[in-house]
Amino acid sequence: MEPYELSFSEAAEKIRTRELSPVELVESSLGRIKETEPAINAFATVTEESALRQAAAAAQEIANGHYRGPLHGIPLGVKDLYDTAGVLTTSSSRVRADYVPDADSVAVAKLTAAGMIVVGKTHTHEFAFGATTPTTRNPWDTSKVPGGSSGGSGAAVASGSVTVALGSDTGGSIRIPASVCGTVGLKPTYGRAPRCGVASLSWSLDHVGPLTRNVREAALVMAAMSGYDRRDPASVDLPAPDWSADLDGSVAGVRIGIPVNFYNERVQPEAWSAAMSAADVVASLGAELVKVEIPMAETIMAAEWTIMLAEASSYHQEALRDTPELFTDEVRVLLEAGEAVLATSYINALRSRTLMQAGWKDMFRDIDVLLAPTVPGPGVDAENPVFAWAADDVEAATSAYSRVCAPANLTGLPAISVPVAFTAEGGLPLGAQVIGKPFCEGDVIRIAAAYEAATDHVGRVAPMSMRVSSVS
Amino acid sequence: MEPYELSFSEAAEKIRTRELSPVELVESSLGRIKETEPAINAFATVTEESALRQAAAAAQEIANGHYRGPLHGIPLGVKDLYDTAGVLTTSSSRVRADYVPDADSVAVAKLTAAGMIVVGKTHTHEFAFGATTPTTRNPWDTSKVPGGSSGGSGAAVASGSVTVALGSDTGGSIRIPASVCGTVGLKPTYGRAPRCGVASLSWSLDHVGPLTRNVREAALVMAAMSGYDRRDPASVDLPAPDWSADLDGSVAGVRIGIPVNFYNERVQPEAWSAAMSAADVVASLGAELVKVEIPMAETIMAAEWTIMLAEASSYHQEALRDTPELFTDEVRVLLEAGEAVLATSYINALRSRTLMQAGWKDMFRDIDVLLAPTVPGPGVDAENPVFAWAADDVEAATSAYSRVCAPANLTGLPAISVPVAFTAEGGLPLGAQVIGKPFCEGDVIRIAAAYEAATDHVGRVAPMSMRVSSVS
Repeated sequence: MEPYELSFSEAAEKIRTRELSPVELVESSLGRIKETEPAINAFATVTEESALRQAAAAAQEIANGHYRGPLHGIPLGVKDLYDTAGVLTTSSSRVRADYVPDADSVAVAKLTAAGMIVVGKTHTHEFAFGATTPTTRNPWDTSKVPGGSSGGSGAAVASGSVTVALGSDTGGSIRIPASVCGTVGLKPTYGRAPRCGVASLSWSLDHVGPLTRNVREAALVMAAMSGYDRRDPASVDLPAPDWSADLDGSVAGVRIGIPVNFYNERVQPEAWSAAMSAADVVASLGAELVKVEIPMAETIMAAEWTIMLAEASSYHQEALRDTPELFTDEVRVLLEAGEAVLATSYINALRSRTLMQAGWKDMFRDIDVLLAPTVPGPGVDAENPVFAWAADDVEAATSAYSRVCAPANLTGLPAISVPVAFTAEGGLPLGAQVIGKPFCEGDVIRIAAAYEAATDHVGRVAPMSMRVSSVS
Repeated sequence: MEPYELSFSEAAEKIRTRELSPVELVESSLGRIKETEPAINAFATVTEESALRQAAAAAQEIANGHYRGPLHGIPLGVKDLYDTAGVLTTSSSRVRADYVPDADSVAVAKLTAAGMIVVGKTHTHEFAFGATTPTTRNPWDTSKVPGGSSGGSGAAVASGSVTVALGSDTGGSIRIPASVCGTVGLKPTYGRAPRCGVASLSWSLDHVGPLTRNVREAALVMAAMSGYDRRDPASVDLPAPDWSADLDGSVAGVRIGIPVNFYNERVQPEAWSAAMSAADVVASLGAELVKVEIPMAETIMAAEWTIMLAEASSYHQEALRDTPELFTDEVRVLLEAGEAVLATSYINALRSRTLMQAGWKDMFRDIDVLLAPTVPGPGVDAENPVFAWAADDVEAATSAYSRVCAPANLTGLPAISVPVAFTAEGGLPLGAQVIGKPFCEGDVIRIAAAYEAATDHVGRVAPMSMRVSSVS
């Protein structure tokens, strides 16, 4: 078994006991990147030199008895939306082709302070404004999209190049690639983790979080990324949590909401039944399934898109005026559409969101978490990224993927996506998401961990044809 | 001395000891309304019948030994923006000429539950969108405006008709009439007091609070209006405060910020020096004066107006489309201007506000409160409501008044206005405001109370020519 194949908890234990050097692990990760990149192109930049330097430093530090904890020496992929000091940070856009930040984003600073080693920057759909990541392919089938916008992070974790990669989630951009690439993806409560130094898509909907191979590791990394930071106006001053205690907790008596609307509409039957099978597994562990109706379902997408278009256009206003030709046509058109949104429309969308939040709060009186499919279906053809629901009903994949994820962004509620099935045809991963109450990440983590422990659906390394070593 | 001339603390003590009946007090208040209304027109509706009925019920209740506390039996004026069950609530607009709410606004419900008796609805500048209140005149000089938008409340308190009247403050609408009519006006921290059932002008800037004759009574009424209510999305879940302990506290060592910019620009010398004299009084009590620079002063008005125009237009969108002719021209034009604001402009204003809040937070590291003039000058001519700074610089009174008040709305910080002087010419009241840290109403109350106790500038009943009894 190659070191890159170890889950990072396993790798961390070996590093702690000095059975494995961070140098070996980083070298294995870099080797795996070289093997898989020709087929998937998950990385915008590979930081080989600095990664090896940091690995050597980590090895030395640990040899000197200064082990920092379970993130020490673990390779990290960082979405190219996150600032990294001295390392090109393009947001996968020609607009920032030459942008090299002076300082790390807060998330990267926190994780590297905990000992993680950045091995590269992963591709994003340009400025996170889309859910297909056209630069990158899905490790489970390279003709398919990896989802997005954190598609590079999903592909990098699924291919085995890293065990953890950072994502950002404005309309599902962590959970979509996690689901489509067969990894775990965790979006915390709005305000939990500071977003300073991460390019914004729509700040009132943006969240940062990790994609990982399993739930335990998502919880560990999320905890390390969390905590108040006044430079993020949305940051909430709550103590940094430790969710490790939740990982093995019982789910007996937990009330799991099963939606009777919205999440089962325009969703492939296989995606829906995969989520329902997951619910049955958790029910078999003692949880109670409770049918619930999603409030204001008909206004979700209008609110999500109006807010996102307007906020994105505000953020990119200067670049759109100065160098519109540097954006891809797809994103430029969205930004131009956002420029035309009236303040009253935007405000009406904010008001809808407020009512929606109140409606969800009421819904959560009867349940502890909600369980639903993460996406309406698996990775679609990269050459034709659509869902064809009927002859006259073809939905762009970005729209379809984000539709099912958007409620957790509008409500700001914590949500985790876990792999729950592979499609019968094509063997493509499908995920289900567990959504919890505000700042109750522990609930969604506990339930996801219980599901994971009860099944074999832990995020696996994709059996890519170019692999040179086999998974043991 | 007529009962209406008693401060409400004095009246309350007499009611408690049964020296005074709520019926006598309410009758006196209604009598004073009849005397003064022909000259000032502070009230849109006088609720004589129900007030007398409630006064009789209160008298009976107290006779039966059920005294509810210091608000029991005290007459209350309610800005016509606040819903009152079964009582016409016009917002001083033809748009709501026939609107009779089914339920009380939360503030009214809380205060009447504490025993207060609504004697009438006070005029507002139409839908609170202006600072002059054209319906109403200033009791100190009936050729002058009472300020606004809570002009009816300011005039009602200043004329002696009531000792307390409710206001709302989006760009100074409590503090402006308080200052111009010589009363105390308290705007709490954003989120402190629920606004449910109060017509919105601009919900991200709107606050509710009282106008009173003195600081103690403002603190009492504000406490009774405060507390979490989930129906107001901005409501913050903090325990309802009791600021009575702050009233007699020492101000020794308190650091009082004195602005070196913004608040001294385009402000009449007399208004500025009145505020500075008040600062000297507080300094003589042991406070320390610290010069501070107001951050981002140049963006305050653009942010205030962009946010207010857009949010007001969203709130009134339906009425503006259905019955534009029912608005006054002045307000209709503002609402139409708001309809043309782009979402990106609104968002940029929100972003400015966020930066401004951060800048103020930094400024408050060096000070405990800020002290400044409340308004740039006294009540202006009702027939020509402007401030003429120079031959080519004439500013509409609404703009000038709100300019000096707006920072406390944009930052959401608590602010109290207290009477500090009368103009040499015309004898018109001038106020100064004390602005504090978030949720530190106790600080501004303590400093205002100390100032009040050290001077004779307690809000007085205006010596209106039609008065039939003299102030003892």
